[in-house]
Amino acid sequence: MNSFGRIFRVNIFGESHGESVGLNLDGCPAGLALNLDDFLEDIKRRQGGNQRGATPRKEDDLPIFKSGLFNDTTTGAPITILFENKNTRSGDYEKLRAVPRPGHADFTAHAKFGGYEDFRGGGHFSGRLTVALVAAGVIAKKLLKTAEGDTNIEVVANILEIAGEADLEKGLDKAIAAKDSVGGIVECRVTGLPIGLGEHFFDSVESLISHAVFAIPAVRGIEFGTGFAAAKMFGVEHNDAILDASGKTASNHAGGIVGGLSLIHI
Amino acid sequence: MNSFGRIFRVNIFGESHGESVGLNLDGCPAGLALNLDDFLEDIKRRQGGNQRGATPRKEDDLPIFKSGLFNDTTTGAPITILFENKNTRSGDYEKLRAVPRPGHADFTAHAKFGGYEDFRGGGHFSGRLTVALVAAGVIAKKLLKTAEGDTNIEVVANILEIAGEADLEKGLDKAIAAKDSVGGIVECRVTGLPIGLGEHFFDSVESLISHAVFAIPAVRGIEFGTGFAAAKMFGVEHNDAILDASGKTASNHAGGIVGGLSLIHI
Amino acid sequence: MNSFGRIFRVNIFGESHGESVGLNLDGCPAGLALNLDDFLEDIKRRQGGNQRGATPRKEDDLPIFKSGLFNDTTTGAPITILFENKNTRSGDYEKLRAVPRPGHADFTAHAKFGGYEDFRGGGHFSGRLTVALVAAGVIAKKLLKTAEGDTNIEVVANILEIAGEADLEKGLDKAIAAKDSVGGIVECRVTGLPIGLGEHFFDSVESLISHAVFAIPAVRGIEFGTGFAAAKMFGVEHNDAILDASGKTASNHAGGIVGGLSLIHI
Amino acid sequence: MNSFGRIFRVNIFGESHGESVGLNLDGCPAGLALNLDDFLEDIKRRQGGNQRGATPRKEDDLPIFKSGLFNDTTTGAPITILFENKNTRSGDYEKLRAVPRPGHADFTAHAKFGGYEDFRGGGHFSGRLTVALVAAGVIAKKLLKTAEGDTNIEVVANILEIAGEADLEKGLDKAIAAKDSVGGIVECRVTGLPIGLGEHFFDSVESLISHAVFAIPAVRGIEFGTGFAAAKMFGVEHNDAILDASGKTASNHAGGIVGGLSLIHI
Repeated sequence: MNSFGRIFRVNIFGESHGESVGLNLDGCPAGLALNLDDFLEDIKRRQGGNQRGATPRKEDDLPIFKSGLFNDTTTGAPITILFENKNTRSGDYEKLRAVPRPGHADFTAHAKFGGYEDFRGGGHFSGRLTVALVAAGVIAKKLLKTAEGDTNIEVVANILEIAGEADLEKGLDKAIAAKDSVGGIVECRVTGLPIGLGEHFFDSVESLISHAVFAIPAVRGIEFGTGFAAAKMFGVEHNDAILDASGKTASNHAGGIVGGLSLIHI
Repeated sequence: MNSFGRIFRVNIFGESHGESVGLNLDGCPAGLALNLDDFLEDIKRRQGGNQRGATPRKEDDLPIFKSGLFNDTTTGAPITILFENKNTRSGDYEKLRAVPRPGHADFTAHAKFGGYEDFRGGGHFSGRLTVALVAAGVIAKKLLKTAEGDTNIEVVANILEIAGEADLEKGLDKAIAAKDSVGGIVECRVTGLPIGLGEHFFDSVESLISHAVFAIPAVRGIEFGTGFAAAKMFGVEHNDAILDASGKTASNHAGGIVGGLSLIHI
Repeated sequence: MNSFGRIFRVNIFGESHGESVGLNLDGCPAGLALNLDDFLEDIKRRQGGNQRGATPRKEDDLPIFKSGLFNDTTTGAPITILFENKNTRSGDYEKLRAVPRPGHADFTAHAKFGGYEDFRGGGHFSGRLTVALVAAGVIAKKLLKTAEGDTNIEVVANILEIAGEADLEKGLDKAIAAKDSVGGIVECRVTGLPIGLGEHFFDSVESLISHAVFAIPAVRGIEFGTGFAAAKMFGVEHNDAILDASGKTASNHAGGIVGGLSLIHI
Repeated sequence: MNSFGRIFRVNIFGESHGESVGLNLDGCPAGLALNLDDFLEDIKRRQGGNQRGATPRKEDDLPIFKSGLFNDTTTGAPITILFENKNTRSGDYEKLRAVPRPGHADFTAHAKFGGYEDFRGGGHFSGRLTVALVAAGVIAKKLLKTAEGDTNIEVVANILEIAGEADLEKGLDKAIAAKDSVGGIVECRVTGLPIGLGEHFFDSVESLISHAVFAIPAVRGIEFGTGFAAAKMFGVEHNDAILDASGKTASNHAGGIVGGLSLIHI
């Protein structure tokens, strides 16, 4: 299934060189003001803007609201948003069929779907669908800012490394010089969460976040808090001493998640 | 929810110092021979046997079948298995209530459940529940060996490092000397999978595996294939060249998963 | 949630007087030929065609395929279909807001969604969304006809009564004379099913069918086989004697469902 | 799957002549007082007590709590409850294998599970499992009475007819004289619900209730409000006029459910 979430459920659909990609979002409460402007900043961040090294494909990526909104406000009914594909050159992809691209789903999708997959530009497997993930994120973030949900939750993501370089310009230079894609590391910090989000075991915060993060094509690893460095640590070093009854800890090796549940940390 | 799986669904329950922990497994096909002996090896591996440095808690961990089996064979009905807790000293834990242990769910569970949590030995958050995960794995692995499912699938997990040492004895020595718990790294290799397992995006192989793996307490990171090392690579280095129509690749940086789908690799 | 199905999952969306209503269908296998013509007959049946007494609202109801199809064939990716709303006169509905219609969701939806609901023509609660249900049914029926699935399964539904009249013309006359809507009874027969579809208890055939059928607005009751008449019968009258090893029964009071599972019956 | 519910999820398991049947309940909030006494009344009602015509099988049906409770209070962890089977005579059932009982799952279960089903007394398909449904209901009802949930919700079920007789003693006499099982009609009234429970279409109140009700073996039909009698009515007769802003209606043909959502009705 291409869906995620039990109460706030995200369904994404569409193909890289189809008419559009999109989002069907079920479970969003009624009464959330939502319009085009809410989406522009995050959509632009995804595109990479005029940044050097970004994909040459240029799309407007303006959300087209098909359901679930009335007078620029959510109604409680499922929300459907389309993003049109305009900058497609499908002809270019016919030749790819015979030669599946390494590192792409061309070969595996062909085997799985018996040759019926839309192979143009990766079809449904394209990174293009991440625009629908961004749209879902925009709505989720705005929900967290509403009166009822307001707990000063902030979600901030930054690029830590490009091509092994902490100096991002230098990393981009390497990629541009090589005329190749490069790897990188992104850090995401969420602050202001209430204590106790998440569930024991299968719905632990780490389980749910990693499930969603690995839905993003090309992600190869994830770590929380100290992450893999914890493998070299003793318990006494790693475990974050609790300082007071508010749950404040002296260190944050656990990434603010203990027992699969969120723990406050300044 | 403490469940995982859409077709073969695992529910785990129980508390560290309750009467038992257990497994309720729905969706297991009828006709799979299953008895006590099938579980012994993996349960023993989880306990650490007589290995130095293992937990001092000793339990028989013999599965008690409560439903879903008839004449030592699965019936197609939900399977319930209990593991009794015998080696418990709950009195010891009363004092812990006032002082939540760092690195454990004591504090977060208390906040989440308003003080109603079973706090003895971590209660439902205890690593003790992993015996139920092992039991589910035993059944899953045996299913893969049945006539219908037989594709020579092998699942092998090994400890790569303990306390930063590739020499596991040396790592254990460090832990024992420090009288502390230590971190480590485990590698899991699955071979013999058919091509095309997994789904696009949210049900990618990486999403589902990481979801399940982070259900195991104390896991701090996961990587597939080259993992975090891919962050320093160019596309031309990382992408595994496909050698022939069988899907064989020249390298395996992707961990045998492309586009979220399994890809054969010898 | 406005979705149904665990493996073949139907999501419907849209509003009566929005731009469109639609279907997002996840889990449909790849390789099913599908085009506009497949939908026309069933969509026309839903509209009531030129039948006397049908709704005056006239829509083309031509499916617009947005995702999941390539070369008129399903790809295995989620299928999105839109049906445009053209014949809407939203202005007419402003006045309804102050006076919720009896027998419609106007009042309950207003209370549930705090006044943010799209109230025009019932909004998301409109019977208009059943066109999306029909579209899902078209695809499901065609799947059953494919080589792999072909078991001569036939699904036939007939109107048994209109306004208490078995003579449907007479029933329509009564409704037209009264200038009112009228009740009726529909019978659905499914033949050619394999034995054993359905699951014990919660996923019994009756549970799943009734769940879906009551998603249709205005349905007030459902019965299987002898239905409510069984309330007056003894076991010996009701229970269908099994005649031979094929499962053929002498009568069919159970509606072809025993223990929640499908049973062959000629 | 033998489970029901998205937030409060009921899993039932066990076999008629196995060691026990039981309930695994996930999603029950922490802090609900719960002990043996809470279950006795409803369990006794299910057994039929000393009522004439009840099943001769006598079981204690005392709930045995295996997980999720601590100090007679729910902890927020999954709740597991067993009911032991003591009054079983499995030997009697060997002969049934060759002659599947009409009106029971013997034949269909055999076909579905390839002969691996536990055939003793219906195995997992036995009405015996309804004791687990009753246990889930006990917990749900008690939750509704807690401070947070208290809205004076009352759930009352009554037998309206036995063997076609509104005089229940007379109906029982007929059954006893015939030495046969008989049909009947049960009415369930729920009062005190808040307005707006349920969701549009697939999660309508009728969809969810009927899904659960048809999980009970031998149920052949369900109707809401006027039910099948609505088939003979005009809209003007059937639709319940709304009297005031509280949602009070002049009649209740809709069974207190409009647009799939609950509507207050005195």
